Amino acid sequence: MTTAKRDTYTPETLLSVAVRVFNERGYDGTSMEHLSKAAGISKSSIYHHVSGKEELLRRAVSRALDGLFAILEEEHACAGRSVDRLEHVVRRMVEVLIAELPHVTLLLRVRGNTETERWALERRRDFDHRVAELLKAAAADGDVRGDVEVRLATRLVFGMINSIVEWYRPEARGASDREVADAVVRLVFSGLRQG
Amino acid sequence: MTTAKRDTYTPETLLSVAVRVFNERGYDGTSMEHLSKAAGISKSSIYHHVSGKEELLRRAVSRALDGLFAILEEEHACAGRSVDRLEHVVRRMVEVLIAELPHVTLLLRVRGNTETERWALERRRDFDHRVAELLKAAAADGDVRGDVEVRLATRLVFGMINSIVEWYRPEARGASDREVADAVVRLVFSGLRQG
Repeated sequence: MTTAKRDTYTPETLLSVAVRVFNERGYDGTSMEHLSKAAGISKSSIYHHVSGKEELLRRAVSRALDGLFAILEEEHACAGRSVDRLEHVVRRMVEVLIAELPHVTLLLRVRGNTETERWALERRRDFDHRVAELLKAAAADGDVRGDVEVRLATRLVFGMINSIVEWYRPEARGASDREVADAVVRLVFSGLRQG
Repeated sequence: MTTAKRDTYTPETLLSVAVRVFNERGYDGTSMEHLSKAAGISKSSIYHHVSGKEELLRRAVSRALDGLFAILEEEHACAGRSVDRLEHVVRRMVEVLIAELPHVTLLLRVRGNTETERWALERRRDFDHRVAELLKAAAADGDVRGDVEVRLATRLVFGMINSIVEWYRPEARGASDREVADAVVRLVFSGLRQG
């Protein structure tokens, strides 16, 4: 059985184990020993697949970042009024966050102690900046309120979206990804108050 | 000088050092040794003030929790339409979070590994529940939108507010506590979209 398990290991399954362990112990607190135990394969078998834990981190956060950046290339993010493009991006951010929950969770916890972490933080900042630019354009069009500073609004909206990783559990019988995305779009664009 | 420093140590200054170290290293990752080094006093001097690190944690998160619960006793949180009471509570939550930034940061990072942490989580849940009840009452009055489920809306609004601990730095020349509170109230109650 152990041999069979070892044989069926792929870079993809190893990555999903690594992401789980990184999220549980923190990236800094995870050793190759922890990964080897969690995966049930030897350290040398892991090194057969990847150069080390930093490569696993890079692959994991790349998946989250690629998912987020791909949103900006979608048709509804590129054409139309800025406020509608922004709404599309906000909705899709929630959907990507839920679809890639463990990878986005890891991305949001990156601290900046290694080169890969600093690169991930840099790409996150790029993404935030692109969304802030959309918000600025929507404000220039007069489609979003002018009394909340763009950078502050961006931070608060990202704060609301990113907080989903703290409580959303796909296995729980709670809101679906669609319901959460609808709720975020309604709150962010129209607020709670009726009428 | 060492003696002078030791003499001027009070439970209050020791608490602020402990809160800083807990936030930097995580509560689990902090030993009495770390606290002793950071405070520049011996472990036995610390034990002269408190029974151990769990008492320091309890004092620190109590300060955050007491600040939050006190909001619910304020006049504007108790009288008037539920939606206005809710708006007052949201505004004051932001102000208390900023006024007690290190204590609230620590409270939000509590994991539940010790009795004190479980007690803090329980009190946080109580507070969340009280705010959710206000939102429910405002929805029953027809003052807040009915198409976002109360529990989900509460989580998202708390997510936005709590995310402030991730970026707000009192020493930076950024938004004041008043500006952040205004921004949160505007976004949460009226949303971004103009008109």
